[in-house]
This record gives sequence, structure tokens and C-alpha cells, in this order.
Amino acid sequence: MKVGDRHYRSIWADERPGGVTIIDQQRLPHVFETRTIGTVGEMAEAIRTMRVRGAPLIGVAAAFGVALAMLKDQRDSALTKAIAELRETRPTAVNLAWALARMEAVLAAMPPSQRAGTAWEEARRIADEDVALNEAIGRNGLAILRGLPPKRERLNVLTHCNAGWIATVDWGTVTAPIFMAHDAGIPIHVWVDETRPRNQGLLTAWELASHGVPHTLVTDNAGGHLMQRGDVDVVLVGADRVTSRGDVCNKIGTYLKALAARDNGVPFYACVPTPTIDWSIADGMQIPIEERAADEVRKVRGLDAAGKFAEVAIAPATTPVANPAFDVTPAALVTGIVTEKGVARADEAELLGFWPRNRENKAYVT
Amino acid sequence: MKVGDRHYRSIWADERPGGVTIIDQQRLPHVFETRTIGTVGEMAEAIRTMRVRGAPLIGVAAAFGVALAMLKDQRDSALTKAIAELRETRPTAVNLAWALARMEAVLAAMPPSQRAGTAWEEARRIADEDVALNEAIGRNGLAILRGLPPKRERLNVLTHCNAGWIATVDWGTVTAPIFMAHDAGIPIHVWVDETRPRNQGLLTAWELASHGVPHTLVTDNAGGHLMQRGDVDVVLVGADRVTSRGDVCNKIGTYLKALAARDNGVPFYACVPTPTIDWSIADGMQIPIEERAADEVRKVRGLDAAGKFAEVAIAPATTPVANPAFDVTPAALVTGIVTEKGVARADEAELLGFWPRNRENKAYVT
Repeated sequence: MKVGDRHYRSIWADERPGGVTIIDQQRLPHVFETRTIGTVGEMAEAIRTMRVRGAPLIGVAAAFGVALAMLKDQRDSALTKAIAELRETRPTAVNLAWALARMEAVLAAMPPSQRAGTAWEEARRIADEDVALNEAIGRNGLAILRGLPPKRERLNVLTHCNAGWIATVDWGTVTAPIFMAHDAGIPIHVWVDETRPRNQGLLTAWELASHGVPHTLVTDNAGGHLMQRGDVDVVLVGADRVTSRGDVCNKIGTYLKALAARDNGVPFYACVPTPTIDWSIADGMQIPIEERAADEVRKVRGLDAAGKFAEVAIAPATTPVANPAFDVTPAALVTGIVTEKGVARADEAELLGFWPRNRENKAYVT
Repeated sequence: MKVGDRHYRSIWADERPGGVTIIDQQRLPHVFETRTIGTVGEMAEAIRTMRVRGAPLIGVAAAFGVALAMLKDQRDSALTKAIAELRETRPTAVNLAWALARMEAVLAAMPPSQRAGTAWEEARRIADEDVALNEAIGRNGLAILRGLPPKRERLNVLTHCNAGWIATVDWGTVTAPIFMAHDAGIPIHVWVDETRPRNQGLLTAWELASHGVPHTLVTDNAGGHLMQRGDVDVVLVGADRVTSRGDVCNKIGTYLKALAARDNGVPFYACVPTPTIDWSIADGMQIPIEERAADEVRKVRGLDAAGKFAEVAIAPATTPVANPAFDVTPAALVTGIVTEKGVARADEAELLGFWPRNRENKAYVT
């Protein structure tokens, strides 16, 4: 998408094997800075320290990490080592494992002498596929937005967390329909939940600002009130996993917005690529919920008065904290699942009928 | 309540006219520090800068402010000046106006020579009445807690914002039943919402820690998930205003917790003194909602790495922000209103039947 007047992907590479460039997300939303990655070690560091983040993007970054390794050393041992190094950067990220497995399957089957070129091509292909997936989600989501009669003079979308273009290679699952609607001249405005504790909403706000889409940052507490007063036409969220019957596992707090949407007659959609549907689980309450570090809640990071990155503690280190990272929105609260293949109601018969050949899919997003 | 081994009120005064002491809430939850207030000017500063905060406490602090002024100068002009100075510290705080009007009515009617002693007595009486009010709310709330079968080995309460003892003179409306349950040996545990943007939940966590009540801080996003997994037995919140039919206006985000409570069969109570019931409004959606400063959302205050108070910006100053401070939970989501006079269902017939002589009350809490 655009940053200022220029089009960017969140990661890009030369056509011929060489350099990879990322946007350093550690410094967003405060500083826009790109970073050239020249080695597999640098890529592993970038994933580990969340310079790149977002499930689809991590997978692509890891694929480029393998490709960078193959530029230097094409032997089996180098391939095994690179994959092991990248895999352990974010051990629970299923996308990462998926992308590494794909790279390994392609590369292990061929003579080492061809690996450098093929690895580069395959990584670029994975990146391009992600862009196409998100663009297709965007077209399907746009059709929904076009069909909504705005309650106010503008079409008000509310979103939670960041399912934006910097979590993917381009477009983003939730932001794709928003960007397309804006570019099509629909007067769209987005309420952006800050999304404590990690404040990923600030990344969404940055993306929207960069592309020129009107938006307003709110606390996670505000969305219900906004819906009560008629200021939300639709809720669009991403998902980390969708079950076979349409339960939506997404960033903690999503469920509260879905409840408010139902209470106020506001449609609620999850925007996901079909591989996010996990056919092995029907009941979302069966999904284990990651419990993250207490300091994510106790401390907040931002820019200090001198404009330097700093953390402040809002709670003493002795305060007991619970920090569940995700929650599950039951299918009954979900109006529909927007995917690259179309929009389905959140029920198993429709999901299955819609993607009968996708049944073998497992979730690859965490 | 107790801080360490010692019992404290949030404000206290010598029996004979002299000094007033407050707990400096600007420094909580990080530093516990009391502060002696010797003049009406110092009291006005303490209210304005939120060293004292919470509607009932502000009223009491203002009454002591008048009493301090009367120690120095008992003339009509001094009384008028003191009241004007105190009133403008927090212009929208109805409690403040209520307490000042009461002091003025008592003092204006008597000879100046008696004012110093009477002002002191009256301010102390207002403080004592607040303690009695909260203690009675506590007894009525305790009866509810005793009647709840815990789903787990402990009784799990969830609360939002701070309706605690430092917002009152002692006990607090929500914390009174909690402290009493804890002191009675009920194994109680409290989930404390951080309550962005001003993080008043940290004050609640500090109060609970000071009194030794088990508690866990969570983000505002977490409560729905906690209820889904059966970890909440009851939601207790305060209220800034309750309408005649039982709609509850409270800190932004309360409505989302009430929705989750209903969805999960968790009882939801507002704990308030009866003067918080505003008989002039039935429909809570008619209550104007204060929109507060954008920087409350963009910036977060806490302790920096050196242990000094500091602010960090989580969003650039250019990010558009909306910051509604309250929302309205419709009566249909409210199990009951816990007051000093008993517990009522949230409907007008019951509220009126319960307090027929309170009909003339206007809300005095903002």
C-alpha cells in the first residue's frame, strides 16, 4: 500500500537473488524505516525481535531467510541449519513452519547447484501468492461494504487489532476491503481499537494514515458505546483461526465487540484466507488460548518526552497479572466469513459447501 | 481501609479545627504518600490536580476546604470567595457543588464568630456520613456475595474502573462488599480491569493489595474471555448515574462487560448510594456523555526505567482520537442496584417502591 506517495509491500526482494528489504515494525507507528536484510541470521533476528510480525508476513520472511542462506551455501547441511534457525525464532507460529516446510520440500528434491535460484523464485512466489490472496479477500469484502447503507454521512467500520497490510505482504485481510472502498470513492471511516496490551491498533492507524483513509483511534472500551449511538455500520476483524462451524478465534477483546455488534444490529465479519479455517475443530472453546507475559500488561512502550523509545510501568512488578492473548467469538455472533473464495455464513454446512476441497486444510495461522 | 497494618481513610482531619491530611492519589499506585493540607488554596490545588479524586471524596475535600478557609477568616466575603475557588476546580463534579451548597447553607445562617467551629464539625459530619453510606452498601453487597455459589474454589468478582475506598472517604461502593467478604473469610478473588485510558483499575489493584485481597490485573479486553471460561461469578461496578428505570451510566467499557455477563449467565450489579439515582431521567441514552482529551488516549503515564514518573506517547500527536468517558448499560442487562438501603431490581417500579421518599433526589455524582 502507499506510504506517502510511494507504493510499498511490507517485504520485498530483487528479482534476481540478492537483497531483501523489510519495514522495521519495531519502530512503527512512530518511525517509518526500512532495513536491508542480507543473511539468514539477520532475518532470524528480524523475526525473533518482531521487526517483521503478522502470521502471513512471518512465513514469507522465513522463506526469504532460506533463500538468503542458499545464496551463500547450497549444501544439504546449510539448508537444514537455515530451516532450524528460522523455525525456532517464533516456535508457535504455524505459518512459519508451513512456509519452511514448503521451501524444504522444493529445495531438498533438487541438486544443490540449482537451489540458490529456485529458493529465490519460490520465496518470491509465496510472497506474490499472499498478495493475491489478500487482494481477493478485499474484492469480496468490498462487495459487502458496497451493500451496506451507511447510518451516517460516512460508512463507519470498526476494527480490532491489526489485520492490516503490514501483517501480510500487501493489502491485509481487513484493510484490503477498506483500502479498496476508499480508493473507489466510498466515504469510509474506521474506528481503530488500540488493542491492549500490545497496542497493535496503532499499527492499523498508521497504515490507514499512510494510505489517507479517515480513521479515529479509540480505547478498547469505547466500541460498545459507539455502536449504541449508531456510529458503526460494520465490524471487520481478522482471525487467527476459524473453526469448521465458524467460531472465530482472534485477538483478546474481539468477542466483546461481537456481543455489542449483535446487541445493536451491526453486522460482524471475520476476514481470513481459507487456510485459516481449521477443519479439525468445530467448537472454538476447545482452542487452547496462549497466556502471554505479565509485563505486556504492566508496561507500555512509546516515545518519551525526548522522542526516544521508552517503557513506563503502569503497575508495580508485584501486581498479579493475567494476559490471555486471544478469545473465541461463537459462530452465532458472526454474520459471515470473508475469504478469497467468497463470503460464507458462519456455519459448517455452508463453510463445507463453499470449500469442499479445502477440507484437508489445517490452520496455518497462529 | 488498611494500608499495610494501619487503618486509613482517604482524607482525615483533627477533631478540633486544624489540619487535614490526604493520600496523594497522583502518585498511586506507585508511591503511597500522605500530604497535609493547611489552606483552602492548597485544597483547591489538590482537587484540581486530582491528588484527591472520586466523586464522594471530592465533595468531602471541598467541605474541608471551606472549613480551612473559615479558620483564617470568618467573614461573609471569605466564605463566598472560598466556595467560588473550590467550585471552579472541577466544574462538572455535581458532588462538589452539593457539598459546597450544604456548607454554605449551614454557615451563611450563623454569626461569623461561630463559623470556624461549625464548619469543621459539618465537614467532619459529611465525611462520616459518606463512610456510613459505603459501609451500608457493603453489608447489602456482602449478602449478595454470600448467596453466590462459586463456580471455582474461590469466589471470582470482576470490576471495572475504581469504585474503591480512595474514591470515597472509606470502604468504597464496590470494594466495601469485597473487603467485608474477605474479612469474613470468604475466599474472594477480584479480576481488575485496567480501565483505559486513565487506568483507574491500577488504583483498585493497589487498594486490594493494600488490604490483602487476592486480585489479578487484566486488560479491558480480557473480561469476556474470563466469563466464557467460567472464571467470573459476579460483576460489580460503580456508577456515575443510575436512571429512574435502572440504566447504569458508568466508566466507558462497562456496557461491554454487562453484555458478556448476560451472555454467560453472570450476575451484574451496580453498587451506588441512592443519591446517584437521577429521577429526572428514565432513558440512559439521554445522558450526555463527556468527551475527554485526546492525549489521555495517545499518552500513558507510569514509572520510567529510573523509577521516575514519565509519560510515553503510544500514538503520534497527529492521530485522530475519540475519548468518550462513559457509557450506558441498559437496565435489561443489570441484575440489581446495590444501595445503602438494600438491593433493588433495575426497574422503575421497584426503584420507586424501594425509595419512595428519595424521588426528589437528583444525581450528585459525576
